[in-house]
Amino acid sequence: MLKNILIGQSGGPTAAINASLAGAVKQALNSPEIGEVYGAHNGIKGVLKRDFFDLRRSIKTEEDLQLLKETPAMALGSCRFKLPDYPSDYYQKILDIFREYNIGYFLYVGGNDSMDTVKKLSAYFSSIGEDIKAVGIPKTIDNDLCCTDHTPGFGSAAKYIATSIAEIAYDSAVYDVLSVTIVEIMGRNAGWLTASSALARLTSCDAPHMIYLPETVFDPDKFIEDLKGISQTARHIVVAASEGLKLANGTYVGESHQTGLKDAFGHKYLSGIGKYMEQLVLDKLHCKVRSVNLNVLQRSASHITSATDIDEAFNVGASAVKFALAGKTGVVAIIKRLSNSPYTVDYDYCEVGEIANFTKFVPQEWIAPNGYDVTPEMMEYLKPLILGEQERHIRHGLPEFFTLDLKTASK
Amino acid sequence: MLKNILIGQSGGPTAAINASLAGAVKQALNSPEIGEVYGAHNGIKGVLKRDFFDLRRSIKTEEDLQLLKETPAMALGSCRFKLPDYPSDYYQKILDIFREYNIGYFLYVGGNDSMDTVKKLSAYFSSIGEDIKAVGIPKTIDNDLCCTDHTPGFGSAAKYIATSIAEIAYDSAVYDVLSVTIVEIMGRNAGWLTASSALARLTSCDAPHMIYLPETVFDPDKFIEDLKGISQTARHIVVAASEGLKLANGTYVGESHQTGLKDAFGHKYLSGIGKYMEQLVLDKLHCKVRSVNLNVLQRSASHITSATDIDEAFNVGASAVKFALAGKTGVVAIIKRLSNSPYTVDYDYCEVGEIANFTKFVPQEWIAPNGYDVTPEMMEYLKPLILGEQERHIRHGLPEFFTLDLKTASK
Repeated sequence: MLKNILIGQSGGPTAAINASLAGAVKQALNSPEIGEVYGAHNGIKGVLKRDFFDLRRSIKTEEDLQLLKETPAMALGSCRFKLPDYPSDYYQKILDIFREYNIGYFLYVGGNDSMDTVKKLSAYFSSIGEDIKAVGIPKTIDNDLCCTDHTPGFGSAAKYIATSIAEIAYDSAVYDVLSVTIVEIMGRNAGWLTASSALARLTSCDAPHMIYLPETVFDPDKFIEDLKGISQTARHIVVAASEGLKLANGTYVGESHQTGLKDAFGHKYLSGIGKYMEQLVLDKLHCKVRSVNLNVLQRSASHITSATDIDEAFNVGASAVKFALAGKTGVVAIIKRLSNSPYTVDYDYCEVGEIANFTKFVPQEWIAPNGYDVTPEMMEYLKPLILGEQERHIRHGLPEFFTLDLKTASK
Repeated sequence: MLKNILIGQSGGPTAAINASLAGAVKQALNSPEIGEVYGAHNGIKGVLKRDFFDLRRSIKTEEDLQLLKETPAMALGSCRFKLPDYPSDYYQKILDIFREYNIGYFLYVGGNDSMDTVKKLSAYFSSIGEDIKAVGIPKTIDNDLCCTDHTPGFGSAAKYIATSIAEIAYDSAVYDVLSVTIVEIMGRNAGWLTASSALARLTSCDAPHMIYLPETVFDPDKFIEDLKGISQTARHIVVAASEGLKLANGTYVGESHQTGLKDAFGHKYLSGIGKYMEQLVLDKLHCKVRSVNLNVLQRSASHITSATDIDEAFNVGASAVKFALAGKTGVVAIIKRLSNSPYTVDYDYCEVGEIANFTKFVPQEWIAPNGYDVTPEMMEYLKPLILGEQERHIRHGLPEFFTLDLKTASK
């Protein structure tokens, strides 16, 4: 009897995560070794409730797959569920359900927290001699996963950020007065997304003038001094600031503007650096100042995804299925960059233990000595990732999206 | 000796205002009756400083014109300058400069405040028998100008808003928990932009679930009651809220969250309704809630403009030149909708006095009886305006923009 495959999505949305799902589904549908193709509704939480999509029946045509690639967020739904360390009742329960549905392959798309689930489940299955392969598919706009050259989802977010920064730069330059525009960018710990704002300079604008990554301690006094210096030559200053900037004492810069909410993993829910810096500039420079928070649009703007990113996300998903079929478990499919010019990549895997719970920071040598810019090496790294315009289906002047039937698969 | 034409831009940016400039410039370049084609740097403020672009030399090719159409904000720069009522020294000064540069035609692209400048100057020139034609070209994302069926710039902003709302809806739906997402939308007095969020329902999402226009008094208690009702059937609720919502006592809803800043026309600088409603929902419903402010991106996102809007903006600009050459002064070029299906328009003009300083509000009969939605008539009005994908020049995976040479024209 053929083994079935189960795919789940977890963590925060990106514009490319459904492309990975599409790649995995297509590869699974084309693999004669695989029986049913199930999708877990809301990740592990759906697994525990036997809440499954029957993807062989929900995704029927090439057109469906294409639309899925163009759809933001998670078609399967997501969760923020931290699987407790073994031993816990969850393991036996998941095993029972996997056996019930004859699951031989479990693919989980997510960030470093979700890879923790892959790590724990694969270790558990191996320890009891159960032949279920668990393979991770990386995704995060934050680009903060180790081993992989970059993460699916990052390139599209970077393209949105660079495009928006250029548009904001033009918008902010219309009046003949000194102005400062703070753009708040996601990335709790790692500054990759904020760094990608530098790509805006590949257009005919010189924004952003200052780039603040969370890898560098933020010094408000030095910021104001540097800003004053820049205002001697630039009239319309754009500042790209990571939501995760910290002061020398380790507290988040915008913390006083926070709600204090935390997510299920205990991470502080951040927002407020833009407003904080806006007030600081107003107090110290008394000039026109505005802050723009790119918010969830930077991770969900499927209308301006990078074709490079979407193609890679698709290929990473397909590769994960191949690795599982080849007998790998406890691994994560990754992207290896072979060359920058021409830009070429290969798909490989690494042990999930090398990725789960780790954060890949921006290396200090890619941060400019002045502390508020990135180096040419960073630019070379970023440039290929935003190339290419993803095909889009348009109806009524708006993007068409794919929605899964909510029919739970029968056993 | 041929008369010269001078074009200026004023007020807030849109993604279509340069298309109107392109249309006017192309028409002027092709008109043998016109000598030099000047652009005023930063509107009337540039006029007063003789700070002019020589557009015949700056915009040389069809490619330049095309790039200009794709460039957000104002290539000429803008100003917020309220021309005082006559008599004032400004009038004689402007007249002297216009004579010095042999200006026979003055075109001003702007909203209802800028049309006030056209009204005053045309009345002045006529009163002293000076043969200078002053013609207005409407622009504003707010769509709040009278006489014209809609304003250039509105359709592109509406397309951005509807697309973003759909993407936000997908993003907000990934977790299996009740959530409320407030999307704050521009439009100080008129709710057209906020209403355009309803277009998102033309995609496969049902967001927004509630739409609050400034034309309706906002009642926080009723909002919470209605939200509770909707939460009985919807799990991921998206609320579109105008930045200009007011309470029954006439104060802005988010006023306590305001900086109290005012612009040069005395308008209150608004921001904060999203954060206000976020806190309100958190206090009353204790559910997951987030607010997203579309901020300046809704007016500057040239990467997702409506081709219908850009084409019309171009044609309105060209029409204004034709009206000026036909001897009209103190008029504004406008769009007349001839039919909805197929959507066809014509270009006409109206007296500037019918537009300047007036606001076109959303008619009460286009607001749904429940107070938080729009009617099918509004949908029919909006639908054609976002159609068509504007051609875009892409380099390095990013939009290419046009930048004028900063060379001041010689007399």
